[in-house]
Amino acid sequence: MNDKPQVIRDTDDDARRQARILLRGARFAAIGVIDPETGFPFVSRVLLGMDSDGAAVILVSNLSAHTTALLADPRASLLTGEPAKGDPLAHPRLTLQCTAESVERDSETHLRLRTRFLARHPKSQLYIDFPDFRFFRLRPERASLNGGFGRAYHLSSADFLLPEFTDDLFEDSDALLRELGGRHPDLATRIATDVYQAPHGDWRISAVDSQGLDIVFKDLLIRHEFPVSITTAGELLLELPKSVYAVP
Amino acid sequence: MNDKPQVIRDTDDDARRQARILLRGARFAAIGVIDPETGFPFVSRVLLGMDSDGAAVILVSNLSAHTTALLADPRASLLTGEPAKGDPLAHPRLTLQCTAESVERDSETHLRLRTRFLARHPKSQLYIDFPDFRFFRLRPERASLNGGFGRAYHLSSADFLLPEFTDDLFEDSDALLRELGGRHPDLATRIATDVYQAPHGDWRISAVDSQGLDIVFKDLLIRHEFPVSITTAGELLLELPKSVYAVP
Repeated sequence: MNDKPQVIRDTDDDARRQARILLRGARFAAIGVIDPETGFPFVSRVLLGMDSDGAAVILVSNLSAHTTALLADPRASLLTGEPAKGDPLAHPRLTLQCTAESVERDSETHLRLRTRFLARHPKSQLYIDFPDFRFFRLRPERASLNGGFGRAYHLSSADFLLPEFTDDLFEDSDALLRELGGRHPDLATRIATDVYQAPHGDWRISAVDSQGLDIVFKDLLIRHEFPVSITTAGELLLELPKSVYAVP
Repeated sequence: MNDKPQVIRDTDDDARRQARILLRGARFAAIGVIDPETGFPFVSRVLLGMDSDGAAVILVSNLSAHTTALLADPRASLLTGEPAKGDPLAHPRLTLQCTAESVERDSETHLRLRTRFLARHPKSQLYIDFPDFRFFRLRPERASLNGGFGRAYHLSSADFLLPEFTDDLFEDSDALLRELGGRHPDLATRIATDVYQAPHGDWRISAVDSQGLDIVFKDLLIRHEFPVSITTAGELLLELPKSVYAVP
């Protein structure tokens, strides 16, 4: 509703969950970097991806102002949580402060990010392999959640860390994704329409991890966080139907 | 469409016009400031107003992180131009770099900003007079316009300067607004629906200046820039019907 002074509340699991959904469910973000020429902040817009450890990921041109800035100073901030209709300050939003790590082309990390980014943003195939494009991982340092009216929280880097599965039942998350798709071909559409009342369509799972699923359809993205973290990929396959329909 | 490297084009009047509309037509913005504790950028969301000289205006709580930061370091950046459906990077957006000037309470500037901000954001009356709220004027220094696909431009502070009327036919812009409303009671609705195909409703003019009109209805705001600047308030009253329907 407004920019009213807010007492910072004690961070609880609901706040952590809301913060994670605001970050992980964002297709794009406002990114703030420090302009190396003037020292002024510089805010622009980027598509957002996620790495398997919970770091945010951006794919940017070497010629863009934010790339030049991040190579000179890796300190960055992301704002996610887009207002819909009504008062823009009534909508929950997350300010993340993060450190940018440039990803070397053709490294293992690059290949992993490429696969994940393409699954989330299929249209990026038009330019993802251009030689002057690069990924940055944005490692969370701390964050502020404004959950609406008098609901302000501070979060730490640990709150955004994504625990990896403790088993290696599948050689990579892509194989797990295929197994999941094979077992439950209509799962993504059921989550989208039954749980989130999203429009019907050809929804698919673009990522799966120990804390949830990303499901996408055209320009829509839903982050479905599980009620509790799941420890192993094996457990995920067993527990999934329960987790999908239990929305706290 | 993407973050493709863009040759910077020569800034022309169309680019200036698009940049001004992106700034002046924004109800809210992402604001980037420098966190005084860590030196990291910090991006959050603010409601946006405009002063009579073209400076951006924000109304913020003394307890908010961006206020603390701006009092320590006045360098700021605004991102405006919200994506609708589709590719978020296909939508025009503006990065403004600006210097924040804190406005003293009960100064002439404060009273002017209060009137203008209320006309633009009527719901701010709930907190605009809280003693711990303050206005900042954000004086444009330079900007980058990303007008979509390969349309990148640099802009200077002069491109955002709003020339004031050279006559003093009305003691203040509020009186001019009343005169305009008296002469053309249905003008705002006609502009909104005829020129911009906006929904029908009780549209009203919230601000008028030498380069255009702001018209508002509920949570909608349209910035209508005139094809050419108008020099005097007297000329404005004569020229307005022409200006309203001439959209370049």
